[in-house]
Amino acid sequence: MEHQQAGNEGATLSQRGRSFIKPKNVIEQAFDECSKNGYDPKKNPTGIINLGVSANGVMFDVLKDKITETGFFDSCTIDHFNYFGGMDDTSHAMAAFLMKYAGSVKPIKRENVVVMNGLTTIVHCLAQVICDEGEGILIPTPLYAGFISDLNVQANVSICPVHLSSEKGTDGTAFQLTVALLEKGLSEAQEKGVKVRGLFITTPHNPLGCIYTKKELLSFMEFCKRHGLHFVSDEIYLTTIFGAGKQAVSALSIEENPLDDDHFHVLYGISKDFAANGVRIGGLVSWSDSVVKSMNSLLTFNQTSGLACYVFSKLLLDEKWLEEVFFPTNRRRLLELYEYTAQFLDTIESVSYIPTATGLYVWCDFRKVLDEPTFEAESELNRRMMKAGVALNPGGGFWCKEPGWFRLVFATHKEYLKEAFDRLRGVLST
Amino acid sequence: MEHQQAGNEGATLSQRGRSFIKPKNVIEQAFDECSKNGYDPKKNPTGIINLGVSANGVMFDVLKDKITETGFFDSCTIDHFNYFGGMDDTSHAMAAFLMKYAGSVKPIKRENVVVMNGLTTIVHCLAQVICDEGEGILIPTPLYAGFISDLNVQANVSICPVHLSSEKGTDGTAFQLTVALLEKGLSEAQEKGVKVRGLFITTPHNPLGCIYTKKELLSFMEFCKRHGLHFVSDEIYLTTIFGAGKQAVSALSIEENPLDDDHFHVLYGISKDFAANGVRIGGLVSWSDSVVKSMNSLLTFNQTSGLACYVFSKLLLDEKWLEEVFFPTNRRRLLELYEYTAQFLDTIESVSYIPTATGLYVWCDFRKVLDEPTFEAESELNRRMMKAGVALNPGGGFWCKEPGWFRLVFATHKEYLKEAFDRLRGVLST
Repeated sequence: MEHQQAGNEGATLSQRGRSFIKPKNVIEQAFDECSKNGYDPKKNPTGIINLGVSANGVMFDVLKDKITETGFFDSCTIDHFNYFGGMDDTSHAMAAFLMKYAGSVKPIKRENVVVMNGLTTIVHCLAQVICDEGEGILIPTPLYAGFISDLNVQANVSICPVHLSSEKGTDGTAFQLTVALLEKGLSEAQEKGVKVRGLFITTPHNPLGCIYTKKELLSFMEFCKRHGLHFVSDEIYLTTIFGAGKQAVSALSIEENPLDDDHFHVLYGISKDFAANGVRIGGLVSWSDSVVKSMNSLLTFNQTSGLACYVFSKLLLDEKWLEEVFFPTNRRRLLELYEYTAQFLDTIESVSYIPTATGLYVWCDFRKVLDEPTFEAESELNRRMMKAGVALNPGGGFWCKEPGWFRLVFATHKEYLKEAFDRLRGVLST
Repeated sequence: MEHQQAGNEGATLSQRGRSFIKPKNVIEQAFDECSKNGYDPKKNPTGIINLGVSANGVMFDVLKDKITETGFFDSCTIDHFNYFGGMDDTSHAMAAFLMKYAGSVKPIKRENVVVMNGLTTIVHCLAQVICDEGEGILIPTPLYAGFISDLNVQANVSICPVHLSSEKGTDGTAFQLTVALLEKGLSEAQEKGVKVRGLFITTPHNPLGCIYTKKELLSFMEFCKRHGLHFVSDEIYLTTIFGAGKQAVSALSIEENPLDDDHFHVLYGISKDFAANGVRIGGLVSWSDSVVKSMNSLLTFNQTSGLACYVFSKLLLDEKWLEEVFFPTNRRRLLELYEYTAQFLDTIESVSYIPTATGLYVWCDFRKVLDEPTFEAESELNRRMMKAGVALNPGGGFWCKEPGWFRLVFATHKEYLKEAFDRLRGVLST
């Protein structure tokens, strides 16, 4: 049996097959390293503590008990295709969940929610449904790093950045997004010859942690309306709010929404709010018949498991458990870890951060630590952190235009955080 | 809040977004009807009995007990992305499973198995990795109907049919595939200007039920070698063999395989052999570094659930349960249902069928029932069956070139079959 490698690597692939293989960015490289050499206090005490990936690692005990109680399946979620069964139940459950927790002013029916195997897949498909190759989507930066591969790897959609500045804006906060900046981003893209088809907003924001107000969201919607753009609101952190008295404002809740159905889309998924990155359920809420129809035609390739559908269709609808157990426990734990993290950061003179009430991370300013204000210096600091055994995600990976910002994910065991902070302190004192 | 429909449907989508929306074929239409009006002896006794979809509906009790015993999860399959965790465990488990049950002559390591959310997704991605848009894949017909959407909806790969005839071939069987026919199919495609990149073989075959011999597989491999084509063997029914003394021959088991690593690929998934269409685990076995690398770059969009990975990584490796419980029970039940079906068909003078020892279906010859030998008459017969409340899949949906063939899936409850056969008898007597 002859099994030799061709000398010319990839020569037998199609052009697009070769094009899928992109060099890994700094965040993906760090993820690989953490996967190979992950910290474990007993088994691998010198391994890397991963504070880079936005995963909620502190709710497994609660979920496990609940899932065990729920049971896992019925026949239809296992032995039959589930895009007419289990996934439809999940659409129904997510619709009901968002009616309540996003406060939708318009009824969301099950047919308005397209469920796929994660929000990553939804973004990758939606980008293709609303953009042809080479067309663009406006995204404020720093942006959710996953958008880069979601839009680029297979969809070949350009991200047209709307660069935000750390200088405090009119509302007294850093990285403020304004319509003037959106107009500027749009003009810059058009000058480069890119046809812009939409705007992606993330609220609560990743990595900044901010929550857009109703007034802000409305102004972004009006900007889209004015320019005939799709407005897409990514609300995957909708209920991950631990700050007292804080609440997210969903685009779904805005009565004055000026957009027509074909241009208004909301993204939701269970990965963050339900501490379930690995379960793979994401959804698109849309009242656009044509968008839903086009997305549905891709369902066969993007089915999620009947096991996942069965479990989370029940959990999304279990208001008593959500209100009495899951949400309060999640908020209490995240708040404690956030405060612990903030206390640590407060002791480091050279580092500041943007206070937050949402998400699983803090956006930290390490600019004073850099030898010079360049992305090379940021990468060098990142390497020193990795070498010391702690991984944060450098701002360059989020297309932040100012070198020296890092995202620190705190939603992990407190003893891991303590060890990670000791290591970080070591890096900063050398 | 203004939410109006645009008058021009789909005008706000991209061109490709519109192109994803394809008219439903006859099989998909029937599937829709069955979903809306499915038979249930108590709740919907006049509903349609679906003998169209190839699903194994008679093993849920065994699976349920085993899955409950296995437990469902650990932290890493739920709260973290699983393309470096759970899916890797599934790659390992599928590699070990195929070493044993496919009798691979070359060691399959975990890095040779790309796992995604179902074989549908694997085919859709592999087609893009080895073909550019408009290029073609040779597939003998009748073919697995799913290939049509897998290759066409998003990948835009042409299926170049190799039409088989029901006239008995040199080996005494109908629909025999020979190298002469492959050469003819290749020439026809080339004459149409299509650049052919590969050949898809399905063994055990769907819908024919035949098993290719080692000699036949070797001749197909040599054909591919001669023409520089990718050879792809779809073996999703590998262990679904109920005929006494019968066994599938995997392409993996052929020592004399003349193909290099970059042109030899095997498809496997749990949907059929494990009665788990809804669980969504499919895999590509390949020793081609570049194919694996390109497929892996698409993993992020094609993750399967950590819940599914956790459960089936264990089941694939549980040889004792497979050998002592699952396989013998499955074979016994399928054999009984097949024999019941064959007995029914034997009583119908106007219908014959190809005896089989594999799969979940029988390929049936209704040509004598048609008013005339046309696909219109086939569709008319199909409509009469649907109206009588029983759905089979007509051969046109499988690109069979002779009108009048139907696939009948028997892997369902015996009382459903009995009712379905009564209804079919009614259709044929009118």
